[in-house]
Amino acid sequence: MTTLRYDVLGIGNAIVDVIARAEDDFLVAQGMHKGTMALIDEARAQAIYAAMGPAVESSGGSAANTIVGVASFGARAAFIGKVKDDELGRTFAHDIRAASVAFDTKPANSGPSTARCYIMVTPDGERTMNTFLGAAQDLKPGDIDESQVANAAVTYLEGYLWDPPQAKEAFVKAAGIAHKAGRRVALTLSDAFCVDRYRAEFLDLIRKGIVDIVFANERELHSLYETADFDSAVKALRGEAKLAVVTRSEKGCVVISKGAVEAVAAEAVEQVADVTGAGDLFAAGFLVGLARGKDHRTAARLGALAAAEVIQHIGARPAVSLKARADESGLIV
Amino acid sequence: MTTLRYDVLGIGNAIVDVIARAEDDFLVAQGMHKGTMALIDEARAQAIYAAMGPAVESSGGSAANTIVGVASFGARAAFIGKVKDDELGRTFAHDIRAASVAFDTKPANSGPSTARCYIMVTPDGERTMNTFLGAAQDLKPGDIDESQVANAAVTYLEGYLWDPPQAKEAFVKAAGIAHKAGRRVALTLSDAFCVDRYRAEFLDLIRKGIVDIVFANERELHSLYETADFDSAVKALRGEAKLAVVTRSEKGCVVISKGAVEAVAAEAVEQVADVTGAGDLFAAGFLVGLARGKDHRTAARLGALAAAEVIQHIGARPAVSLKARADESGLIV
Repeated sequence: MTTLRYDVLGIGNAIVDVIARAEDDFLVAQGMHKGTMALIDEARAQAIYAAMGPAVESSGGSAANTIVGVASFGARAAFIGKVKDDELGRTFAHDIRAASVAFDTKPANSGPSTARCYIMVTPDGERTMNTFLGAAQDLKPGDIDESQVANAAVTYLEGYLWDPPQAKEAFVKAAGIAHKAGRRVALTLSDAFCVDRYRAEFLDLIRKGIVDIVFANERELHSLYETADFDSAVKALRGEAKLAVVTRSEKGCVVISKGAVEAVAAEAVEQVADVTGAGDLFAAGFLVGLARGKDHRTAARLGALAAAEVIQHIGARPAVSLKARADESGLIV
Repeated sequence: MTTLRYDVLGIGNAIVDVIARAEDDFLVAQGMHKGTMALIDEARAQAIYAAMGPAVESSGGSAANTIVGVASFGARAAFIGKVKDDELGRTFAHDIRAASVAFDTKPANSGPSTARCYIMVTPDGERTMNTFLGAAQDLKPGDIDESQVANAAVTYLEGYLWDPPQAKEAFVKAAGIAHKAGRRVALTLSDAFCVDRYRAEFLDLIRKGIVDIVFANERELHSLYETADFDSAVKALRGEAKLAVVTRSEKGCVVISKGAVEAVAAEAVEQVADVTGAGDLFAAGFLVGLARGKDHRTAARLGALAAAEVIQHIGARPAVSLKARADESGLIV
């Protein structure tokens, strides 16, 4: 058990989700690629919103969802990300603080509005995302709180941070502070198209040891090594990463370290309502396990438990206490 | 089958719900009366929001929920209500139009922001509401579109309209237009405390025949006649109302007309997640039945079906097509 101030600090795009159900035909008509995230400008955001069905608004953002999951396990969590001082920005700040996450990033007073992600949930539970980055683009190195990073067992960064122009500098700064303080740095590859945009840079982060732990799903892994063969991609990642976890939806995950490649099963679920947040919440459970000194298998089981909870309802953040769920499953956090 | 432009036109407060789970202790600490609606000012709204847990935002408003339910049955629906031209106002307008409801009320350009209702959902699924009326207070007689009212089989009004100072004039104007055109007027009593505030006026509306159809739940009925005895309250209502429906949660409802008092069972539900919108959606089904010339029992069964759908998930509007649900149940809309 660590005596640091935080178990996990997350840095990512601060986004409010606008979630609607949609038929597959709608995705086709709108030219959307099912299961992926597309970046959109404000005009496209308005056009999508006008075309989509009745929606609910809910705070989101990949790393932010993860950090809320970390807090839901009863672990100590903090988040750094940029909103504007507007209605949605206040909504984001309320929701993350109400989830017991420390969130002190100064909101932008001018410039574009708080980021929104328009999410279409198809009848199969798959989600297709369209992100207007807005104020999230203003995250700068100056927003990184050195003392928070130095006092977090793990600093967790999302690959999506490569999209806003200055955020990657904030990312690299945070990683440097973390390593100087003897802490670990984790990265999620975020999305297969995101990997496509920044493949060389992501590989560089892994090869130079700027990140210690890599999270990827199958599609992201295949994109990273530009191969359709799972085993050879796993082999390549094992040769480069200190520790990596590849999530495979209902097939569970594989934890890849120098010593072993371990497969861990997924949790059984009754019905998949909305897969939004599945990867984010898997990372939450795994990181809590790591920060609390659990073995990789136990950490992966905590991840599977959190992912199973979030896909059984609409929205990307837990609807119940993950600590209570872990207790019920006999997993001690 | 009517050839009018609308089956049902609703007039009510245009509100965005801010919904969070809460324990019973929270209600006690905040001095909230479980299961009821309290009116709050902006300062209290901020205090409640700061104290409550992570929330989701979802368009609401009692009559607005009903009208979205009407549209979900495939019936033709319109709504009149006042938002401000702000972020939440645009959210409200988007959601109701995306549900195929005609909504043309001009938004306010100045004055208080769009109305918000802070809803606490306790573990038993009960909801406790706190409404900041904001821009909804600006609904005026001039906002009533005469042609819409004259072309709707039923105009449906919420008792909550007695709270904003000028809305009752809009209400009475709409009732007059409807009757002059030979249409029917329905009223929901909204809330037991609301009945407490306006008992004499609500009785006057019923006695003078300004409303033809009355919706109430048991608590509202008891409040209306200031009695704890259900049978004597039903008898009193039967002596005064042309047609009334009293909803009794899992005990179903009674349809009260001069000719008969008919009990109709509730639909069985697996688990109650959130009762918000139960009464609103019951009214939707009943009104669709009435507008389409069904008998009272069939109308009540459509109401029960809609209420059962909405209480099985978080939020006060249907998550699936009520027309499809009715088809599955062999109820022809």
